[in-house]
Amino acid sequence: MPKISDKGRLMPESPIRKLVPYAEAARAAGRTVYPLNIGQPDIKTPEVAMEAIRNCTEKVIEYSHSAGNISYRKKLAKYYQNIGINVDENEMLITTGGSEAITFSLMSCMNPGDEVLIPEPFYANYNGFAVAAGVVVKPITSSIENDFALPSIEEFEKLMTPKTKGIVICNPNNPTGYLYSKEELNQLRELVLKHDLYLFSDEVYREFCYDGEEHFSAMNLEGLEQNVILMDSVSKRYSECGVRIGALITKNKDVINTALKFAQARLCPPAFGQIAAEASLETPAEYFTEVYNEYIDRRNFTVEALNNMDGVYCPTPKGAFYTVVKLPIDDSDKFAQWILENFEYKNQTVMVAPATGFYATPGLGKNEVRIAYVLKKEDLANAMETLAEALKVYPGRTI
Amino acid sequence: MPKISDKGRLMPESPIRKLVPYAEAARAAGRTVYPLNIGQPDIKTPEVAMEAIRNCTEKVIEYSHSAGNISYRKKLAKYYQNIGINVDENEMLITTGGSEAITFSLMSCMNPGDEVLIPEPFYANYNGFAVAAGVVVKPITSSIENDFALPSIEEFEKLMTPKTKGIVICNPNNPTGYLYSKEELNQLRELVLKHDLYLFSDEVYREFCYDGEEHFSAMNLEGLEQNVILMDSVSKRYSECGVRIGALITKNKDVINTALKFAQARLCPPAFGQIAAEASLETPAEYFTEVYNEYIDRRNFTVEALNNMDGVYCPTPKGAFYTVVKLPIDDSDKFAQWILENFEYKNQTVMVAPATGFYATPGLGKNEVRIAYVLKKEDLANAMETLAEALKVYPGRTI
Ligand SMILES: Cc1ncc(COP(=O)(O)O)c(C=O)c1O
Ligand SMILES: Cc1ncc(COP(=O)(O)O)c(C=O)c1O
Repeated sequence: MPKISDKGRLMPESPIRKLVPYAEAARAAGRTVYPLNIGQPDIKTPEVAMEAIRNCTEKVIEYSHSAGNISYRKKLAKYYQNIGINVDENEMLITTGGSEAITFSLMSCMNPGDEVLIPEPFYANYNGFAVAAGVVVKPITSSIENDFALPSIEEFEKLMTPKTKGIVICNPNNPTGYLYSKEELNQLRELVLKHDLYLFSDEVYREFCYDGEEHFSAMNLEGLEQNVILMDSVSKRYSECGVRIGALITKNKDVINTALKFAQARLCPPAFGQIAAEASLETPAEYFTEVYNEYIDRRNFTVEALNNMDGVYCPTPKGAFYTVVKLPIDDSDKFAQWILENFEYKNQTVMVAPATGFYATPGLGKNEVRIAYVLKKEDLANAMETLAEALKVYPGRTI
Repeated sequence: MPKISDKGRLMPESPIRKLVPYAEAARAAGRTVYPLNIGQPDIKTPEVAMEAIRNCTEKVIEYSHSAGNISYRKKLAKYYQNIGINVDENEMLITTGGSEAITFSLMSCMNPGDEVLIPEPFYANYNGFAVAAGVVVKPITSSIENDFALPSIEEFEKLMTPKTKGIVICNPNNPTGYLYSKEELNQLRELVLKHDLYLFSDEVYREFCYDGEEHFSAMNLEGLEQNVILMDSVSKRYSECGVRIGALITKNKDVINTALKFAQARLCPPAFGQIAAEASLETPAEYFTEVYNEYIDRRNFTVEALNNMDGVYCPTPKGAFYTVVKLPIDDSDKFAQWILENFEYKNQTVMVAPATGFYATPGLGKNEVRIAYVLKKEDLANAMETLAEALKVYPGRTI
């Protein structure tokens, strides 16, 4: 029997899916399990998108242009222009989800063995994309003590080697909900210029910024036109996770032309997804206001509930719909499993994502979990009550 | 300005797309350009698929299971069982097109630097997937002299090194239209067993077999359960190229589990595509009869027309909807460009794919082109007439 590849062995298991069998067992036992562990919003997909799909009159669902339909790219360019990001339809490739934009970016820019610096905790699938591309991830630890702000530039420089070719940031951040300030981004700008790096900026949560904070895109960092690659997605913006449409955006022609070759090999992004995504650009402003209000509400509720629990600390996230929270526990992996397997409160339990999966440095995140506030307030209320009760009796409680 | 990656530089340009600007110029000059160069059928997508899309009542387009919807996988398993391929829903992953199935297969099974043997001419994008995975392609030349039959096993063994880990076949074949016989597949079977290789079998043209010839799937080669990986797609079967749904199928649990990790990193295959593909399994038998009759007609017409041209030889393809044909020309790349740029007949011209793009051995395919008979008969007739006239006056004509 032939052996699987080294990449296959290095490829991380999804840290969240490990818990699925325990959740299934709990559900099978008749318990309600609140999924606080995944970034799948319950928000409705915009009606304009669903209508476009229902009205589809194509006779043959053909391959589209490998870079995506030109009609969609032109409208998408306008969307960016409207939010102050000055790009045109030739400076973007439509990808199969933001996921593919990340893969194409790494493959186009980095050689196997090259190193990319990423502030941790970070979106766990960056590990998988890095393994696929043969790229080495060097984490720089950000800390809940200062609410996961950008680590100091010295910390980045300490880790730099001749193999360091890029930095990945996620802004607003999954999993921490941190929103980088313009000052922080300018610090990164200098670092990137000084060492001639790529700056891969994952901005899929751009629309989710709270408390009047403005999102500042890496695309607008002066003098970084050739360095910045924006990775974007409609998954969260329009609650269209399943349509699988994202984008790779850059003013660097070499990168666009190179990524296009990867795009041509896989032929094209999904046709129906492009129809939905194009139509979504006409989503009325009220949709976003409603979504915004809903998330603000959920966030405020969740953060307050968490901070009211004994021994728990939750920073106030300024963006996205996640928060990494410190719990009085010995081991977040054990805790996440225990609460599904051995705990119930009013016949309910919760699923949380152990933060260990978001740190690349072994041992970190043991007393932290990520909570996604993507549920209705009633459900969140029940989930928080359940979590509070669980913490009281968890055998591995530390304080 | 940071440099692009070595992979980016190695990544081949699509051999077909190079000609697009010349076709566009011809069209801009008012000429009709018949696209014989691409595998985009004009056949209608089944009505059941379009209806399922138009009737979609989902409120939130969510991520699906990373391996694809279980309802789809269960029905797809039945489809395979009905055609004598005995697999269940856990022996498959739904992928984003057959393209992704190929990428996942290579990444899961092969290390960077490992070698894969492929009879040439072959589907050009295998090069791109191999570059992405860091895998080295070793071509084994099949020849138009014996209608592109499987090269002898000695030819395979000559190229084997300790790094040889797999063989890719495409059956029926793109670009040649050749259908491997059971005997040929059994020869491969022995080779694979002897050297403990993976056999990657691309069977996306399975439904397109002519003249009463039966398709024999590599999945049914005895004793190869742990070696064979089937790569499949709905793109051609249902003329659904744009929906981007394929499948990776194998009885090898290590491979499935490994590929699932790659699948989890990219989250899921397209939701609407899965809806269309699932509904397509109910496509009435008449659809396939009609399509079959249409292609047989087109094939017979095309092959006859080609063989009637002076100095042209076209084997009779037994499958898919392509044929590689020998022309009395000096250089197929020059010819393909010339006919678009400098030739017209009754204000028409044609686009053909130079066969050089399908050979990995430099210099081969210079007097061959691939013709896709994916156009209506009237159009094919005009295209063949135009091609015949062009060959008469092409300055690089050899005989
Ligand atoms: C930070 C981040 N980037 C990228 C993605 C990929 O999303 P998609 O491939 O659905 O666009 C996600 C999904 O959760 C994410 O959280
Ligand atoms: C031989 C072969 N394999 C795989 C593919 C990939 O098709 P898709 O990704 O659309 O399923 C094609 C497309 O033309 C093909 O010809």
